[in-house]
Amino acid sequence: MNGATAVLESLGRAGVRVCFANPGTSELHLVAALDRTPHLRAVLCLFEGVAAGAADGYARMTGIPAVTLLHQGPGLAYGLANLHNAMRAASPVVNLIGDGASTHRGLGAPLESDVAALAGPVSRWVRTARNPEGAGADAVAAVAAATGPPGAVATLVVPADVAWSPGGRAARALPEEPAAPAPVGTVNAGRDSTILLGGPTLRARGLTAADRIARATGASLLAEAFPGRIERGVDVPPIERLSGNPVDARQRLAGCRHLVLAGAATPVMAFAEPGTAGELTPPGCTVERLDGDTTAALEELANRVAPHLRARPYKPPATPNEPVNRPLTAEGVAQVVAALLPQWAIVVDEANTSIVALPDGTARHDLLTNSGFAIGLGMPLAAGAALACPDRPVVCLEADGSAMYTPSALWTHAREGLDVTTIVLNNRAYAILRRERTRLLGQPGGSALFDLSGPDLDFVALATAMGVPGSRASTTGELTAQLKQALAEPGPHLIEATVPARY
Amino acid sequence: MNGATAVLESLGRAGVRVCFANPGTSELHLVAALDRTPHLRAVLCLFEGVAAGAADGYARMTGIPAVTLLHQGPGLAYGLANLHNAMRAASPVVNLIGDGASTHRGLGAPLESDVAALAGPVSRWVRTARNPEGAGADAVAAVAAATGPPGAVATLVVPADVAWSPGGRAARALPEEPAAPAPVGTVNAGRDSTILLGGPTLRARGLTAADRIARATGASLLAEAFPGRIERGVDVPPIERLSGNPVDARQRLAGCRHLVLAGAATPVMAFAEPGTAGELTPPGCTVERLDGDTTAALEELANRVAPHLRARPYKPPATPNEPVNRPLTAEGVAQVVAALLPQWAIVVDEANTSIVALPDGTARHDLLTNSGFAIGLGMPLAAGAALACPDRPVVCLEADGSAMYTPSALWTHAREGLDVTTIVLNNRAYAILRRERTRLLGQPGGSALFDLSGPDLDFVALATAMGVPGSRASTTGELTAQLKQALAEPGPHLIEATVPARY
Repeated sequence: MNGATAVLESLGRAGVRVCFANPGTSELHLVAALDRTPHLRAVLCLFEGVAAGAADGYARMTGIPAVTLLHQGPGLAYGLANLHNAMRAASPVVNLIGDGASTHRGLGAPLESDVAALAGPVSRWVRTARNPEGAGADAVAAVAAATGPPGAVATLVVPADVAWSPGGRAARALPEEPAAPAPVGTVNAGRDSTILLGGPTLRARGLTAADRIARATGASLLAEAFPGRIERGVDVPPIERLSGNPVDARQRLAGCRHLVLAGAATPVMAFAEPGTAGELTPPGCTVERLDGDTTAALEELANRVAPHLRARPYKPPATPNEPVNRPLTAEGVAQVVAALLPQWAIVVDEANTSIVALPDGTARHDLLTNSGFAIGLGMPLAAGAALACPDRPVVCLEADGSAMYTPSALWTHAREGLDVTTIVLNNRAYAILRRERTRLLGQPGGSALFDLSGPDLDFVALATAMGVPGSRASTTGELTAQLKQALAEPGPHLIEATVPARY
Repeated sequence: MNGATAVLESLGRAGVRVCFANPGTSELHLVAALDRTPHLRAVLCLFEGVAAGAADGYARMTGIPAVTLLHQGPGLAYGLANLHNAMRAASPVVNLIGDGASTHRGLGAPLESDVAALAGPVSRWVRTARNPEGAGADAVAAVAAATGPPGAVATLVVPADVAWSPGGRAARALPEEPAAPAPVGTVNAGRDSTILLGGPTLRARGLTAADRIARATGASLLAEAFPGRIERGVDVPPIERLSGNPVDARQRLAGCRHLVLAGAATPVMAFAEPGTAGELTPPGCTVERLDGDTTAALEELANRVAPHLRARPYKPPATPNEPVNRPLTAEGVAQVVAALLPQWAIVVDEANTSIVALPDGTARHDLLTNSGFAIGLGMPLAAGAALACPDRPVVCLEADGSAMYTPSALWTHAREGLDVTTIVLNNRAYAILRRERTRLLGQPGGSALFDLSGPDLDFVALATAMGVPGSRASTTGELTAQLKQALAEPGPHLIEATVPARY
């Protein structure tokens, strides 16, 4: 068994089931081993950013790391932005890099590059396999490092000579270490307290426990502004998300004297402003952090402070009606999606300034957002989520600007026959830059560099280029009809929703 | 004057004329300064890899660095692959990164990232501007570091607070230091010698001097396998390129006892093979390197060894005829392009396994190839070359696989009205991986991961999506008619050439 086979077999034994690959010449032995590994599905992506974002989406929906198979330094580089997003969402990802042969290093071959240096900033763990004998154990260690909790990117670099040399041994998965118990004793969840939920606490279990705590203690609940995954809809207690607008967020936190971080990071401004503090918490607010298994910590706290309060079955208002027909806006898109969203849908939201808060009454669904702010995540994330949950429809709300970083994700939607309906909210602008320029410089409008018209991007043609059926909607009626059809048919669809820019 | 204005004004004073930008929220002051800087043209790219590749193309055709304006770590990451290619081609590029405010660092904001660590592997020079007072001088130092010779990527990181704070001063350009004279005294250019030309020596001046040396001494001449830029055609002595196939290259160099590197790197195998040395030179071959101004060194040597030999005006055979009509192959594409290529065209070649050696008799042209092997360079490089040389037609030979890394370059072709005709040789495969698998593993064909059919990519629709007129050719006759029309009309065109995979 060569080193490549040892790596892939060990990954399979450790429970890895999907590899999102954009292979190159230095990882041909890894590809050959992948093709021979049972139960490990290889999914071709035409760009590394698609592979990385898809692995993130898969991890968010399963908790299991997928593998990204990328090519030396430049291939890894194209994957880094979405690996950054995976890192921020604490998604477990095994980032497997096929590097040039270690014996070839230092010769100055065209693709020679410092893979470990590039991977460092997005990885919790980076290791270069030194020999085929240890490569299997390296792979198993990568899975353990990625899995956490919390999840993270673990980068394993396999030089070509380690991959092709004999002496490899498949390694067994490491026994799972239970997460350390969280120190819940000191949490003070009273009326001047806010619990900020993030990470895994935003599933039904954590939200139910937090709801019990809040009802018993008067503590206030908030969800982090850009959660990796949040469960919503029927039978899940609703929770307010902290605003992404720093003025609103600061106002919301103004009365908070004690902030409990349950799986969330300290809330800060995403972007600095002259003369403004970066933290969003008010002066004097104490901050306490739950570590380890934060969902279990919330349940323990709930059992202590609210032993007799049971989960409150949440019955949202009736599903909203389809809106009356009128020219499409971002709000109109949200209304149509809310009215038509199927039960157990997965919603990916990278609509940026067109960001749509689905109204109450929406079907039970998971919402995935861009925790890391590196745009170009949406359509790849949707691919990974759809592969993870083949029985659940995925609705991907995408923006025109961000769609253009990873457009070939659509090809993977088509190739794998994924049940993803992508709605591109096309406002023909980098509207977020217009908004921020107004806020920061006091100059509305701004640069020609924010204008995406001239020529207008044609997303229906883009979908056609990738083998995805496409259509265009400019009224709520058109969107309703097209979304109904897309949701009724299996496989991918794209709808270009023409909306006015808000900024 | 704030720090941002100091940076942009100083760049303009140092002779920078173009900025390829994909801006984000942390560089809004840099954008505002850019919009105010006279003589500095801002070109919007929808993806950082396009900006980086365009800067490379511009630098290859002018020798002057263009600026790339990229956004924090993730934006830079998307630009790294083509910055790697620029580094390998020794292209001068000023890589300007708008980072988050230095006062915000350490708070864990979503986009916080280690920009300097990411830029290091592709940069000769990395500096973070510390204050607005010094930012102008930092910009001038970046231009000097990028310019060389040889050219390189110089990364200047400007935190948002340095950009927005007052106290900036525009700096003057540094006086140019003349390149150190090259040590030519010891060059032994005899019959058992080979001069391997690379970098700037592959222009008419260097090729003419090398031709004189070869005629006088019997030395053999070769061009590096993947030159950044090589002049070819009428009045330029033709030169053989070292083969990219290691077996052929080793055979070609077998008799060489003395190798003179004139602007080229030591020839090595691009990819390692088990049990094979990485160097392509035969054992015992001595290697000598010309440093400094290598073209001047060749001219000095020519004047010493061949004082009475003048330049030989090269009259190539008549332009080849248009081929007879038959189903299209990669060779057929080469024949059509050679027959129709206008004088002073610029040819970008990223056709990979469909790589086209234009036959003798082709019009005078510059050929730009992918020295760094990170694919996705072609269409961005063509954008930069066309902007640099608005009076010269650009023909971009692209492959299906590599086109999918940076497809939005086509949108920049359309937005700027660039005279670029892109021919995508679509063989529906990562054929290079099939070829290498056969060579390395002895297993022909190979993985489903190398198959780009299912669904077939539709490059005509892709061009339409980006505002570029597109057509499809499957015979030499169709290609001839479509290429004639594309060359006759101003502005960008795309022709999808359906060709069989060679591997």
